Amino acid sequence: MSQVMGKLYGLGIGPGDPELITLKAYRILRSVPVIAYPAMESGKVLARAIVADYLRSDQIEIPMPLPFSPTRSSQPYYDTAAEKIAGYLSQGLDVAVLCEGEPFLYGTFMYLFNRLSGKFATEVVPGISSTMASASALGVPLTYRNDVLSIMPATLEAEILRDRLAVVDAAVIIKLGRHFAKVRQVLIELGQFDRALYIERATMPNQRILPIADVDPAGVPYWALVMVPSQQKSVS
Amino acid sequence: MSQVMGKLYGLGIGPGDPELITLKAYRILRSVPVIAYPAMESGKVLARAIVADYLRSDQIEIPMPLPFSPTRSSQPYYDTAAEKIAGYLSQGLDVAVLCEGEPFLYGTFMYLFNRLSGKFATEVVPGISSTMASASALGVPLTYRNDVLSIMPATLEAEILRDRLAVVDAAVIIKLGRHFAKVRQVLIELGQFDRALYIERATMPNQRILPIADVDPAGVPYWALVMVPSQQKSVS
Repeated sequence: MSQVMGKLYGLGIGPGDPELITLKAYRILRSVPVIAYPAMESGKVLARAIVADYLRSDQIEIPMPLPFSPTRSSQPYYDTAAEKIAGYLSQGLDVAVLCEGEPFLYGTFMYLFNRLSGKFATEVVPGISSTMASASALGVPLTYRNDVLSIMPATLEAEILRDRLAVVDAAVIIKLGRHFAKVRQVLIELGQFDRALYIERATMPNQRILPIADVDPAGVPYWALVMVPSQQKSVS
Repeated sequence: MSQVMGKLYGLGIGPGDPELITLKAYRILRSVPVIAYPAMESGKVLARAIVADYLRSDQIEIPMPLPFSPTRSSQPYYDTAAEKIAGYLSQGLDVAVLCEGEPFLYGTFMYLFNRLSGKFATEVVPGISSTMASASALGVPLTYRNDVLSIMPATLEAEILRDRLAVVDAAVIIKLGRHFAKVRQVLIELGQFDRALYIERATMPNQRILPIADVDPAGVPYWALVMVPSQQKSVS
């Protein structure tokens, strides 16, 4: 008798506000017997916290220890997590991996997807990215009409940031952390600083919006971003 | 006696699959007395169709005639729609404007937002953009790690498309329509054509995915996009 395999879900659970999960992700989250989520070395299990109120007490939970920033050396972590998940899938149990934001946009789920999707039926459920939710939280439209928008990590070198930002109409610069001072300098050089907006932990209970000129570079968390909105408002 | 004003909502309802609306948008959609939605000159009322099953029969509906492509000449359309909405808000009724995808990303809602948000309490509820949902629908991760992602309309001139695409790791080119042949030529010149992916009406019942080499430029709808995913998979 051949064993029916379980299905793997990459479940986008949105930027932080539990209400910003989709009906689809909610349905799957409630129905699967097994959930898995990243558990950072710092001990934070943010993804699980977002959906904590929706979980059933009889669901099997797989916390996946993962390094904070994926590098080549993180491969063993993903190998281990993938093996564990594969074990449940092979028993015929569906597994939902909780993914903050959008699974396929700078997500850690991709590393599991690349290991497992060839062997098991896999479905990715899109989620709202913090890059998008920040515009709503800030109350400022991001792109109009024929704008070019770029999303980029603050970890890039100043010269690359400058080159990329110089040619776009709107931008979102993510993963700020200790890179804020560098980003600020680039924005000033490009004349984009005055319209840039700063937000930490968009839509989370501890969301924080500051005038960008008031930001202390020493206190910027990883989950902060800068949005450079389009200037096209005047032609609306 | 001063009249309590209604609240204006810009409601992101996602890319097309009714299940890809958020719990928050669903709650607001069910609770407001008035909904408004774009009714294109072609007669299409796509946004309303997406959430048709969620509407209450006692809700007041405001179809807003809008030109298909916003230009300066579309200002009178938005003026008229804004006045109509303001009328209900002034009566103390909350109004939710249905927005396909994400309201602040290339949305028509911005033109109402810019007219009304100074006068009435306004809240924008983010939605899943088709630019994000397409990656899930195609089953291909969009960006890894330190990638730069650009989202741009196919309506741009070939030279601008080429310059912008040449410097990014991943891209989504939207609003294809009659611009497909131009985009294809640019992608071929840049050596990005072989990894580019094509999708029409992501997550809608009539979603269509074709190998990009098989696409007939004469039959490409406006709601088609090309995704150029990151090449970083190999280092996962």
